[in-house]
Amino acid sequence: MAKKKAYNECLNTVKPVKDALEVINGKWKLAIIISVGVGNERFTDIQDSIEGITPKVLAKELKDLEQHKLIKRIIIDDYPVKIIYRSEPYADTLTPIIYALKEWGINHKKMIAK
Amino acid sequence: MAKKKAYNECLNTVKPVKDALEVINGKWKLAIIISVGVGNERFTDIQDSIEGITPKVLAKELKDLEQHKLIKRIIIDDYPVKIIYRSEPYADTLTPIIYALKEWGINHKKMIAK
Repeated sequence: MAKKKAYNECLNTVKPVKDALEVINGKWKLAIIISVGVGNERFTDIQDSIEGITPKVLAKELKDLEQHKLIKRIIIDDYPVKIIYRSEPYADTLTPIIYALKEWGINHKKMIAK
Repeated sequence: MAKKKAYNECLNTVKPVKDALEVINGKWKLAIIISVGVGNERFTDIQDSIEGITPKVLAKELKDLEQHKLIKRIIIDDYPVKIIYRSEPYADTLTPIIYALKEWGINHKKMIAK
């Protein structure tokens, strides 16, 4: 009789990985993180940089990313008051993961095309 | 006037990252990769190791993972014929990414709980 391998301990991996994926996945999150990361800081500039995103969705996603402490909303006390978005330094912790996923994705495309 | 930063080159990142996420995301894929990775090789053992998965869904997901060259379906010419599933060595290329996501997910949970 084949022995079943312990799987429960692996749930300890599945759960936090899913937590992480939830943050970077979805249709727009990654694109927004990157857009703000490269220096787009005004709402309209971010919107223009991402084809197809509506203002309503962008506003919601920015709020989400703010709650995840990846993006900071800054109110500049000027005339008129200006609101800008900047990457939090914490967002940099995602960079190596994003690049590892990128490399893997590029390689994988070649792999399954074989 | 604020200058808009180049975003197009970033699409070169978004696309392959999304390709990669498509493989590991979804409700079950990661759990199946891990279950097979730790040594469950019979269909029923894999099924038993993942709470809530139906045989129909597991069969579809295994086929998907086979097409992605992450899992191998092996027919053992025995009486009766036995079918087992094994991780492809290629699946190991995902391991560092899964662990990086795991670490990030654990840390992130603490981060947003602050």
